[in-house]
Amino acid sequence: MTDARQAALDYHAKPIPGKLSIELTKPTATARDLALAYSPGVAEPVREIARDPENAYRYTGKGNLVAVISDGTAILGLGNLGPLASKPVMEGKGVLFKRFAGINSVDIEVNAESPQAFIDTVARIADTWGGINLEDIKAPECFEIEQALIEQCSIPVFHDDQHGTAIVTTAGTLNALSIAGKSVEEAKIVCLGAGSAAIACMKLLVSCGARAENIYMLDRKGVIHTGREDLNQYKAMFAVETDKRTLGDAIEGADVFLGLSGPNLLSPEQLKKMAPNPVVFACSNPDPEIHPELARETRDDVIMATGRSDYPNQVNNVLCFPFIFRGALDVRATRINEEMKVAAVHALKDLAREPVPSEVLEAYEMESMSFGREYIIPTPVDVRLLDRVASAVAQAAVDSGVARKPYPSHYPLKTVDDVYGG
Amino acid sequence: MTDARQAALDYHAKPIPGKLSIELTKPTATARDLALAYSPGVAEPVREIARDPENAYRYTGKGNLVAVISDGTAILGLGNLGPLASKPVMEGKGVLFKRFAGINSVDIEVNAESPQAFIDTVARIADTWGGINLEDIKAPECFEIEQALIEQCSIPVFHDDQHGTAIVTTAGTLNALSIAGKSVEEAKIVCLGAGSAAIACMKLLVSCGARAENIYMLDRKGVIHTGREDLNQYKAMFAVETDKRTLGDAIEGADVFLGLSGPNLLSPEQLKKMAPNPVVFACSNPDPEIHPELARETRDDVIMATGRSDYPNQVNNVLCFPFIFRGALDVRATRINEEMKVAAVHALKDLAREPVPSEVLEAYEMESMSFGREYIIPTPVDVRLLDRVASAVAQAAVDSGVARKPYPSHYPLKTVDDVYGG
Repeated sequence: MTDARQAALDYHAKPIPGKLSIELTKPTATARDLALAYSPGVAEPVREIARDPENAYRYTGKGNLVAVISDGTAILGLGNLGPLASKPVMEGKGVLFKRFAGINSVDIEVNAESPQAFIDTVARIADTWGGINLEDIKAPECFEIEQALIEQCSIPVFHDDQHGTAIVTTAGTLNALSIAGKSVEEAKIVCLGAGSAAIACMKLLVSCGARAENIYMLDRKGVIHTGREDLNQYKAMFAVETDKRTLGDAIEGADVFLGLSGPNLLSPEQLKKMAPNPVVFACSNPDPEIHPELARETRDDVIMATGRSDYPNQVNNVLCFPFIFRGALDVRATRINEEMKVAAVHALKDLAREPVPSEVLEAYEMESMSFGREYIIPTPVDVRLLDRVASAVAQAAVDSGVARKPYPSHYPLKTVDDVYGG
Repeated sequence: MTDARQAALDYHAKPIPGKLSIELTKPTATARDLALAYSPGVAEPVREIARDPENAYRYTGKGNLVAVISDGTAILGLGNLGPLASKPVMEGKGVLFKRFAGINSVDIEVNAESPQAFIDTVARIADTWGGINLEDIKAPECFEIEQALIEQCSIPVFHDDQHGTAIVTTAGTLNALSIAGKSVEEAKIVCLGAGSAAIACMKLLVSCGARAENIYMLDRKGVIHTGREDLNQYKAMFAVETDKRTLGDAIEGADVFLGLSGPNLLSPEQLKKMAPNPVVFACSNPDPEIHPELARETRDDVIMATGRSDYPNQVNNVLCFPFIFRGALDVRATRINEEMKVAAVHALKDLAREPVPSEVLEAYEMESMSFGREYIIPTPVDVRLLDRVASAVAQAAVDSGVARKPYPSHYPLKTVDDVYGG
């Protein structure tokens, strides 16, 4: 076993298994304390919630509690390994929720025989939490599951593999196009991959100004065009009338390449065929569609992002999901709508254009970093993310009418210690 | 609003809602830490669990994680107020699990249209945890639900309202009979109430030596006898051939009265008809079947227990459930079987016969306490409970063949800090 593998296993196993624990937030030392926490005192909040369900937000942890739910059918890049094997990932998501946004989260692994069984199961227990983060569920089932749960639940339901990826990618793409001196409305976009993240990215790019007719999406069989009869309804949304059939055809003159597919699928020859100042998001992880060094050798005008933390411009969902839930929870949004996603895109996009704080430079051991080809997306260590994204999302929820509480009076949030407004 | 009500609401609402939070148990300060906790490092435990599901106990929190699950159909003594209203109670149970046995717990409120829907829902998500504590589910549905989940799950499933109550009551009854100089085999027992706790108590008393033919159980219609045709299968187990029809008939010469019914249902006249040194468990809460002071005035040879913390001999489930799960989790038991419940009974019974530690005396502001009429059950503040019950349960699990790990080498447990063996 390599050192890196052993370190990962040791981290999870020692000194105690896992990464999270439940802790008490109220006094429990005395018999009186316990008579408040449990019987007989606990009958009072029970009665208040029975009288008005909204009181659950006042007397229980519901309002700051998100469930991270998976069936383990698409774990990381590892495929369908079943619900139990997904547990370390779901617990890891809980670590990130707490670390970055002060949100309590619990994982639920669902062993469901069908999408409908998954939906029924989660819908029946959804009231337990303030929000639901769906994770690592394969396409196309994930679309049906998310849509049904959004309709059946009164709390935000968010499939992070779709929308978290889409928000970060779109923010980075908008910035990269701006650096390239191009408009998103005119940009010709090639999306290699037609899974849940790819479809969500293209939908959100369209919400942010891209034109569907400028997008070529490719699945394993090539370009998704109107002549194909093997498309599910989700891919069919992106079918274009074209005689282009291969990546080689579609990449000709493209302004943006988004790879959500597999290693080394974009060749140097294909990269050469792209328009000047090409934007290349090679998100296959750990091995991108084209290696950043190879891309740079091939042409020096490329603006490049990957999923890797060891190269500039990492597309990392942690830039978004903790904060979009923070904003949604804080205004008690009934859902995370398109307006809130777009607000998160612009918050991320705009933050990258601001001067970089010294803590970020120190964390990356850099003398300087500034908006440009090597810095189109904020970094995960940037503490400003919490406030910028959460406040934009909260405001969008209020403006779009899905908030059940006003914009929080305790904002702006400087650190996770501020999440309750002190 | 009374001060007591307001204090209970304030405890739950201030300074932050609820009673529990999720905390990180591993370092998360650096990018390297996060690369171990989440992608890419987390792929390693995922692969190990996919290879062998038992590895979930090694690399995730599963092995020390219990779900507290309710549908809110029988919340405390308040009745069917629905799943969401039960949340403060389920979170309170989580407080007790952590405080007394170091067990992490999460609450799940299930909005199920039928017992089968409840069963399906919980069975599909059961792998998430190391054990399931069912709570506040009304009879007779709770029997069907518990039995089905025990059969379908490979982890312990325990309906505390039944078995927790039964274990503590049986331990106290055995001690009370011993003080009265009577044998459990000969004791004539009247059980007023035929709900889930009552039936579980009588079953466990039988497992501990009582004879079913010596038991009169009464529901709202009176004595449960073989001539009745309105009995569900659970009540029918306790139908006896008799011409007794009322509590007044049954109580004549009884050695034990167990009340799991409602306030003031045992009259002084009825108490007078019991045998010498009568054992009276009046568990209706907060108003017992007969008030302890009235019982004492009526006859001075009564040995009395209630559900109240302000009188001696409180029947309190917290004496059992944290520790029976501690023992079950620590040997990775596949279920909590009758042998483990009986072991818990004897551990509680025997502990009450030992000298009382000074901390307990201090907590109760008593000069002395010793085994006798006023002390037949240990107190919740007794730190010896953790080791005594957990170790007895763990040993019984090993002996009865339901343990998947050997008796823990880090036992005995002095405090909850010892739960991992250090």
